[in-house]
Amino acid sequence: MNLQEKTISTKKIFDGRIISVQVDEVELPNGKTSTRELVKHPGAVAVIAVTDEGKIVLVEQYRKPLEKEIVEIPAGKLEKGENPEVCAKRELEEETGYGCDSIELVSSFYTSPGFADEIIHIYVAKGLKKLEDAAGLDEDEFVNLMEVTLEEALEFIKNQRIYDAKTIYAIQYLQLALGRTK
Amino acid sequence: MNLQEKTISTKKIFDGRIISVQVDEVELPNGKTSTRELVKHPGAVAVIAVTDEGKIVLVEQYRKPLEKEIVEIPAGKLEKGENPEVCAKRELEEETGYGCDSIELVSSFYTSPGFADEIIHIYVAKGLKKLEDAAGLDEDEFVNLMEVTLEEALEFIKNQRIYDAKTIYAIQYLQLALGRTK
Repeated sequence: MNLQEKTISTKKIFDGRIISVQVDEVELPNGKTSTRELVKHPGAVAVIAVTDEGKIVLVEQYRKPLEKEIVEIPAGKLEKGENPEVCAKRELEEETGYGCDSIELVSSFYTSPGFADEIIHIYVAKGLKKLEDAAGLDEDEFVNLMEVTLEEALEFIKNQRIYDAKTIYAIQYLQLALGRTK
Repeated sequence: MNLQEKTISTKKIFDGRIISVQVDEVELPNGKTSTRELVKHPGAVAVIAVTDEGKIVLVEQYRKPLEKEIVEIPAGKLEKGENPEVCAKRELEEETGYGCDSIELVSSFYTSPGFADEIIHIYVAKGLKKLEDAAGLDEDEFVNLMEVTLEEALEFIKNQRIYDAKTIYAIQYLQLALGRTK
Protein backbone atom coordinates (compact mmCIF):
# COMPACT_ATOMS: atom_id res chain seq x y z
CA MET A 1 0.00 0.00 0.00
CA ASN A 2 1.20 3.50 -0.82
CA LEU A 3 1.51 5.30 2.53
CA GLN A 4 2.61 8.78 1.49
CA GLU A 5 0.93 11.88 2.90
CA LYS A 6 1.02 14.88 0.56
CA THR A 7 1.34 18.37 2.01
CA ILE A 8 -1.62 20.60 1.10
CA SER A 9 -0.58 23.58 3.23
CA THR A 10 1.80 24.51 6.05
CA LYS A 11 1.00 26.86 8.90
CA LYS A 12 3.97 28.17 10.89
CA ILE A 13 3.14 28.29 14.61
CA PHE A 14 6.39 29.06 16.42
CA ASP A 15 10.00 29.81 15.61
CA GLY A 16 12.10 29.46 18.76
CA ARG A 17 15.76 29.42 19.74
CA ILE A 18 15.87 25.61 19.44
CA ILE A 19 12.65 24.22 18.00
CA SER A 20 10.09 25.43 15.53
CA VAL A 21 6.51 24.20 15.24
CA GLN A 22 4.17 23.97 12.25
CA VAL A 23 0.85 22.36 11.41
CA ASP A 24 0.61 20.73 7.99
CA GLU A 25 -2.66 19.92 6.31
CA VAL A 26 -2.11 16.63 4.49
CA GLU A 27 -3.84 14.45 1.92
CA LEU A 28 -3.97 10.90 3.26
CA PRO A 29 -3.45 7.76 1.10
CA ASN A 30 -7.25 7.38 0.83
CA GLY A 31 -7.70 10.93 -0.48
CA LYS A 32 -9.13 12.34 2.76
CA THR A 33 -7.41 15.16 4.61
CA SER A 34 -5.99 15.46 8.12
CA THR A 35 -3.55 17.66 10.04
CA ARG A 36 -0.07 16.85 11.36
CA GLU A 37 1.59 18.79 14.18
CA LEU A 38 5.33 18.91 13.53
CA VAL A 39 8.29 19.97 15.65
CA LYS A 40 11.50 20.83 13.78
CA HIS A 41 14.75 20.32 15.68
CA PRO A 42 18.39 20.84 14.54
CA GLY A 43 19.43 17.30 15.54
CA ALA A 44 21.80 16.16 18.24
CA VAL A 45 24.78 13.98 19.07
CA ALA A 46 25.57 11.81 22.08
CA VAL A 47 28.75 10.02 23.14
CA ILE A 48 29.33 6.61 24.70
CA ALA A 49 32.58 7.13 26.61
CA VAL A 50 34.24 4.48 28.79
CA THR A 51 37.39 5.30 30.79
CA ASP A 52 40.54 3.13 30.93
CA GLU A 53 39.18 1.84 34.26
CA GLY A 54 36.01 0.62 32.52
CA LYS A 55 33.74 3.33 33.95
CA ILE A 56 30.97 4.85 31.82
CA VAL A 57 31.08 8.66 31.73
CA LEU A 58 27.65 10.18 32.48
CA VAL A 59 26.24 13.60 33.29
CA GLU A 60 23.39 14.46 35.60
CA GLN A 61 21.30 17.35 34.31
CA TYR A 62 18.03 19.10 35.16
CA ARG A 63 15.55 18.60 32.35
CA LYS A 64 12.88 21.28 32.43
CA PRO A 65 10.32 19.29 30.37
CA LEU A 66 10.46 16.56 33.05
CA GLU A 67 10.91 18.96 36.02
CA LYS A 68 13.64 16.71 37.40
CA GLU A 69 17.29 15.65 37.07
CA ILE A 70 18.16 12.56 35.09
CA VAL A 71 21.51 10.91 34.29
CA GLU A 72 22.49 10.74 30.61
CA ILE A 73 25.40 10.10 28.32
CA PRO A 74 27.06 13.39 27.26
CA ALA A 75 25.03 14.97 24.46
CA GLY A 76 24.16 18.20 22.78
CA LYS A 77 22.46 19.89 19.89
CA LEU A 78 24.08 20.35 16.52
CA GLU A 79 24.90 23.94 15.70
CA LYS A 80 23.88 25.17 12.28
CA GLY A 81 26.00 23.43 9.64
CA GLU A 82 28.15 21.69 12.25
CA ASN A 83 29.72 18.32 11.45
CA PRO A 84 28.23 15.74 13.88
CA GLU A 85 31.64 14.21 14.70
CA VAL A 86 33.10 17.63 15.54
CA CYS A 87 29.99 18.31 17.65
CA ALA A 88 30.39 14.99 19.49
CA LYS A 89 34.01 15.77 20.44
CA ARG A 90 33.01 19.28 21.50
CA GLU A 91 30.13 18.11 23.70
CA LEU A 92 32.27 15.40 25.31
CA GLU A 93 34.93 17.98 26.16
CA GLU A 94 32.51 20.68 27.36
CA GLU A 95 30.35 18.40 29.52
CA THR A 96 33.00 16.06 30.93
CA GLY A 97 36.47 17.59 30.44
CA TYR A 98 37.54 14.51 28.47
CA GLY A 99 39.27 14.49 25.12
CA CYS A 100 39.62 11.28 23.10
CA ASP A 101 42.02 9.65 20.62
CA SER A 102 39.23 8.63 18.25
CA ILE A 103 35.47 8.82 17.91
CA GLU A 104 33.28 6.56 15.77
CA LEU A 105 29.61 6.70 14.73
CA VAL A 106 27.69 3.64 15.95
CA SER A 107 24.06 4.55 15.26
CA SER A 108 21.70 7.35 14.27
CA PHE A 109 18.01 7.36 15.07
CA TYR A 110 14.93 9.55 15.21
CA THR A 111 13.74 10.04 18.77
CA SER A 112 10.03 10.80 18.22
CA PRO A 113 9.10 10.21 14.59
CA GLY A 114 5.39 10.73 15.27
CA PHE A 115 5.73 14.46 15.92
CA ALA A 116 9.39 15.56 15.63
CA ASP A 117 12.25 15.35 13.13
CA GLU A 118 14.98 15.24 15.80
CA ILE A 119 17.72 12.79 14.85
CA ILE A 120 20.47 11.80 17.25
CA HIS A 121 23.85 10.49 16.18
CA ILE A 122 25.50 8.19 18.72
CA TYR A 123 29.29 7.98 18.85
CA VAL A 124 31.73 5.82 20.78
CA ALA A 125 34.84 7.65 22.01
CA LYS A 126 38.08 5.70 22.45
CA GLY A 127 41.26 6.63 24.34
CA LEU A 128 39.77 9.09 26.82
CA LYS A 129 42.11 11.55 28.52
CA LYS A 130 41.35 14.39 30.90
CA LEU A 131 42.12 17.76 29.33
CA GLU A 132 43.74 20.42 31.49
CA ASP A 133 42.29 23.28 29.45
CA ALA A 134 38.93 21.78 28.46
CA ALA A 135 36.31 24.09 26.94
CA GLY A 136 33.51 24.93 29.38
CA LEU A 137 29.76 24.54 29.27
CA ASP A 138 27.29 26.89 27.63
CA GLU A 139 26.19 29.63 30.00
CA ASP A 140 22.76 28.03 30.57
CA GLU A 141 24.12 24.49 31.10
CA PHE A 142 24.82 22.92 34.49
CA VAL A 143 25.79 19.27 34.93
CA ASN A 144 27.21 16.90 37.54
CA LEU A 145 29.84 14.56 36.10
CA MET A 146 29.61 10.87 37.11
CA GLU A 147 31.62 7.76 36.28
CA VAL A 148 29.91 4.43 36.94
CA THR A 149 30.33 0.73 36.24
CA LEU A 150 27.98 -1.12 33.89
CA GLU A 151 26.33 -2.74 36.91
CA GLU A 152 25.73 0.68 38.48
CA ALA A 153 24.30 1.97 35.21
CA LEU A 154 21.86 -0.98 35.08
CA GLU A 155 20.83 -0.12 38.66
CA PHE A 156 20.27 3.52 37.54
CA ILE A 157 17.92 2.26 34.81
CA LYS A 158 15.99 0.21 37.40
CA ASN A 159 15.52 3.17 39.72
CA GLN A 160 14.80 5.60 36.87
CA ARG A 161 17.81 7.88 37.34
CA ILE A 162 18.73 6.82 33.78
CA TYR A 163 15.45 7.37 32.02
CA ASP A 164 15.95 8.45 28.41
CA ALA A 165 16.11 6.64 25.07
CA LYS A 166 19.69 7.47 24.01
CA THR A 167 21.22 6.51 27.38
CA ILE A 168 19.26 3.24 27.64
CA TYR A 169 20.38 2.52 24.06
CA ALA A 170 23.99 3.22 25.12
CA ILE A 171 23.84 0.86 28.09
CA GLN A 172 22.34 -1.93 25.96
CA TYR A 173 25.05 -1.23 23.35
CA LEU A 174 27.74 -1.75 26.01
CA GLN A 175 26.02 -4.92 27.27
CA LEU A 176 26.03 -6.30 23.73
CA ALA A 177 29.62 -5.16 23.05
CA LEU A 178 30.79 -6.82 26.27
CA GLY A 179 28.81 -9.97 25.54
CA ARG A 180 26.75 -9.72 28.72
CA THR A 181 23.24 -10.97 28.02
CA LYS A 182 20.20 -10.94 30.26
CA MET B 1 25.72 20.89 42.74
CA ASN B 2 22.05 21.83 42.85
CA LEU B 3 20.83 21.70 39.26
CA GLN B 4 17.21 22.76 39.59
CA GLU B 5 15.69 25.38 37.30
CA LYS B 6 12.84 27.36 38.86
CA THR B 7 9.95 28.50 36.71
CA ILE B 8 9.54 32.28 36.67
CA SER B 9 6.77 32.41 34.07
CA THR B 10 5.10 30.25 31.45
CA LYS B 11 3.92 31.44 28.05
CA LYS B 12 1.51 29.16 26.21
CA ILE B 13 2.31 29.05 22.48
CA PHE B 14 0.17 26.31 20.98
CA ASP B 15 -2.50 23.85 22.04
CA GLY B 16 -2.93 21.19 19.36
CA ARG B 17 -4.74 17.91 18.90
CA ILE B 18 -1.66 15.97 20.07
CA ILE B 19 1.05 18.29 21.37
CA SER B 20 1.10 21.61 23.16
CA VAL B 21 4.00 24.02 23.26
CA GLN B 22 5.06 26.56 25.88
CA VAL B 23 8.08 28.72 26.64
CA ASP B 24 9.13 28.90 30.29
CA GLU B 25 11.35 31.62 31.68
CA VAL B 26 13.56 29.93 34.28
CA GLU B 27 15.97 30.86 37.04
CA LEU B 28 19.18 28.87 36.55
CA PRO B 29 21.25 27.38 39.42
CA ASN B 30 23.57 30.43 39.28
CA GLY B 31 20.69 32.89 39.66
CA LYS B 32 20.67 34.04 36.03
CA THR B 33 17.64 33.59 33.81
CA SER B 34 17.08 31.75 30.53
CA THR B 35 14.18 30.37 28.49
CA ARG B 36 13.16 26.76 27.83
CA GLU B 37 11.02 25.69 24.88
CA LEU B 38 8.84 22.77 25.97
CA VAL B 39 6.64 20.35 24.07
CA LYS B 40 3.96 18.53 26.08
CA HIS B 41 2.88 15.12 24.78
CA PRO B 42 0.35 12.62 26.23
CA GLY B 43 2.87 9.74 26.23
CA ALA B 44 2.91 6.58 24.20
CA VAL B 45 3.24 2.80 24.27
CA ALA B 46 5.01 0.36 21.99
CA VAL B 47 4.94 -3.42 21.77
CA ILE B 48 7.66 -5.98 21.13
CA ALA B 49 5.73 -8.87 19.58
CA VAL B 50 7.33 -12.09 18.31
CA THR B 51 5.22 -14.76 16.60
CA ASP B 52 5.36 -18.50 17.37
CA GLU B 53 7.60 -18.81 14.28
CA GLY B 54 10.10 -16.36 15.83
CA LYS B 55 9.23 -13.45 13.52
CA ILE B 56 9.18 -9.88 14.87
CA VAL B 57 5.92 -8.03 14.10
CA LEU B 58 6.59 -4.60 12.58
CA VAL B 59 4.59 -1.89 10.83
CA GLU B 60 5.70 0.39 8.03
CA GLN B 61 4.25 3.87 8.36
CA TYR B 62 4.63 7.28 6.70
CA ARG B 63 6.04 9.75 9.21
CA LYS B 64 5.23 13.30 8.17
CA PRO B 65 7.99 14.92 10.28
CA LEU B 66 10.55 12.82 8.35
CA GLU B 67 8.68 12.96 5.00
CA LYS B 68 9.28 9.23 4.53
CA GLU B 69 8.18 5.74 5.56
CA ILE B 70 10.03 3.92 8.31
CA VAL B 71 9.51 0.49 9.88
CA GLU B 72 8.65 0.44 13.59
CA ILE B 73 7.33 -1.80 16.32
CA PRO B 74 3.56 -1.28 16.80
CA ALA B 75 2.97 1.85 18.87
CA GLY B 76 0.52 4.57 19.65
CA LYS B 77 -0.35 7.51 21.81
CA LEU B 78 -2.04 7.18 25.18
CA GLU B 79 -5.57 8.45 25.24
CA LYS B 80 -6.48 10.73 28.13
CA GLY B 81 -6.52 8.69 31.35
CA GLU B 82 -5.89 5.42 29.50
CA ASN B 83 -4.01 2.62 31.26
CA PRO B 84 -0.76 2.00 29.32
CA GLU B 85 -1.20 -1.79 29.32
CA VAL B 86 -4.72 -1.48 27.90
CA CYS B 87 -3.37 0.95 25.30
CA ALA B 88 -0.55 -1.47 24.36
CA LYS B 89 -3.04 -4.31 23.74
CA ARG B 90 -5.30 -1.97 21.78
CA GLU B 91 -2.51 -0.66 19.55
CA LEU B 92 -1.18 -4.18 18.89
CA GLU B 93 -4.65 -5.30 17.81
CA GLU B 94 -5.45 -2.19 15.73
CA GLU B 95 -2.12 -2.04 13.89
CA THR B 96 -1.39 -5.75 13.42
CA GLY B 97 -4.59 -7.76 13.99
CA TYR B 98 -2.84 -9.74 16.73
CA GLY B 99 -4.20 -10.44 20.19
CA CYS B 100 -1.97 -11.85 22.91
CA ASP B 101 -2.20 -14.09 25.99
CA SER B 102 -0.15 -11.72 28.17
CA ILE B 103 1.66 -8.43 27.96
CA GLU B 104 4.45 -7.25 30.26
CA LEU B 105 6.17 -3.87 30.75
CA VAL B 106 9.91 -4.09 30.04
CA SER B 107 11.01 -0.44 30.04
CA SER B 108 9.81 3.16 30.03
CA PHE B 109 11.87 6.07 28.80
CA TYR B 110 11.70 9.69 27.74
CA THR B 111 12.39 10.10 24.04
CA SER B 112 13.68 13.71 23.92
CA PRO B 113 14.21 15.03 27.45
CA GLY B 114 15.84 18.24 26.21
CA PHE B 115 12.64 19.66 24.75
CA ALA B 116 9.73 17.23 25.25
CA ASP B 117 8.05 15.32 28.07
CA GLU B 118 7.01 12.38 25.86
CA ILE B 119 7.48 9.07 27.70
CA ILE B 120 7.13 5.74 25.96
CA HIS B 121 6.28 2.49 27.74
CA ILE B 122 7.64 -0.62 26.03
CA TYR B 123 5.80 -3.92 26.45
CA VAL B 124 6.53 -7.48 25.41
CA ALA B 125 3.50 -9.44 24.19
CA LYS B 126 3.46 -13.21 24.63
CA GLY B 127 1.20 -15.82 23.02
CA LEU B 128 0.27 -13.93 19.84
CA LYS B 129 -2.82 -15.05 17.95
CA LYS B 130 -4.49 -13.54 14.89
CA LEU B 131 -7.92 -12.14 15.73
CA GLU B 132 -10.74 -12.64 13.25
CA ASP B 133 -12.60 -9.55 14.39
CA ALA B 134 -9.67 -7.26 15.24
CA ALA B 135 -10.38 -3.57 15.85
CA GLY B 136 -9.26 -1.39 12.93
CA LEU B 137 -6.94 1.59 12.64
CA ASP B 138 -7.78 5.20 13.37
CA GLU B 139 -9.18 6.94 10.32
CA ASP B 140 -5.94 8.87 9.68
CA GLU B 141 -3.65 5.84 10.16
CA PHE B 142 -2.28 3.68 7.33
CA VAL B 143 0.32 0.95 7.88
CA ASN B 144 1.87 -2.02 6.09
CA LEU B 145 2.23 -5.06 8.34
CA MET B 146 5.55 -6.94 8.21
CA GLU B 147 6.97 -9.98 9.99
CA VAL B 148 10.75 -10.37 9.91
CA THR B 149 13.53 -12.43 11.49
CA LEU B 150 16.02 -10.84 13.89
CA GLU B 151 18.64 -10.97 11.13
CA GLU B 152 16.32 -9.13 8.75
CA ALA B 153 15.59 -6.53 11.43
CA LEU B 154 19.34 -5.95 11.91
CA GLU B 155 19.63 -5.48 8.14
CA PHE B 156 16.75 -2.95 8.29
CA ILE B 157 18.73 -0.98 10.91
CA LYS B 158 21.80 -0.99 8.66
CA ASN B 159 19.89 0.35 5.65
CA GLN B 160 17.86 2.82 7.76
CA ARG B 161 14.41 1.35 7.17
CA ILE B 162 14.33 0.87 10.96
CA TYR B 163 15.43 4.30 12.10
CA ASP B 164 13.78 5.25 15.40
CA ALA B 165 14.77 4.98 19.06
CA LYS B 166 12.04 2.65 20.34
CA THR B 167 12.45 0.12 17.52
CA ILE B 168 16.25 0.06 17.77
CA TYR B 169 15.81 -0.40 21.53
CA ALA B 170 13.42 -3.31 20.84
CA ILE B 171 15.86 -5.05 18.49
CA GLN B 172 18.70 -4.65 21.04
CA TYR B 173 16.33 -6.01 23.71
CA LEU B 174 15.66 -9.12 21.61
CA GLN B 175 19.39 -9.59 20.89
CA LEU B 176 20.09 -9.48 24.63
CA ALA B 177 17.12 -11.72 25.48
CA LEU B 178 18.26 -14.28 22.92
CA GLY B 179 21.86 -14.08 24.07
CA ARG B 180 23.14 -12.98 20.67
CA THR B 181 25.95 -10.51 21.20
CA LYS B 182 27.98 -8.61 18.64
